[in-house]
Amino acid sequence: MNENLLGIIAGLLTSGSMIPQLIKVIKEKNADDLSWGMLGVLIVGVSLWTWYGVLKDELPIILTNAFSVAVNITLLICCLIYKKK
Amino acid sequence: MNENLLGIIAGLLTSGSMIPQLIKVIKEKNADDLSWGMLGVLIVGVSLWTWYGVLKDELPIILTNAFSVAVNITLLICCLIYKKK
Repeated sequence: MNENLLGIIAGLLTSGSMIPQLIKVIKEKNADDLSWGMLGVLIVGVSLWTWYGVLKDELPIILTNAFSVAVNITLLICCLIYKKK
Repeated sequence: MNENLLGIIAGLLTSGSMIPQLIKVIKEKNADDLSWGMLGVLIVGVSLWTWYGVLKDELPIILTNAFSVAVNITLLICCLIYKKK
């Protein structure tokens, strides 16, 4: 299989797995299930992957991890707005 | 920064972010928070990333995604054992 296509499918699946969580939080206006620590670690992690993709010049890694950064920052903003404790 | 080192740090963070979930499920013997669909999508996604890493011959991608496959399959087994509905 074409490597870029494989990378983009893999990235859609791993990045897409966060979307149901995001929809649930926005719909229920409740972010109590989310942990600041885990979100922080994930945001740093996917940002470093994006940087790795830039260094290696690999578009599937850059695109899918940049998307994950955006989803996780949105979740972090939801935490700021909705989290009660 | 060395690309491989960057990739390994990034992978430790993104793979490691699943560990607290795994510990919680095993400690509480309760997998009701987990979704079959999300676990299935994640297992396929990280397996494809591992394959991508093999094709591109990039050790950080292979190692960290193989680790994620193992963590997610363990979570799936916990689901089989503990999930009530």
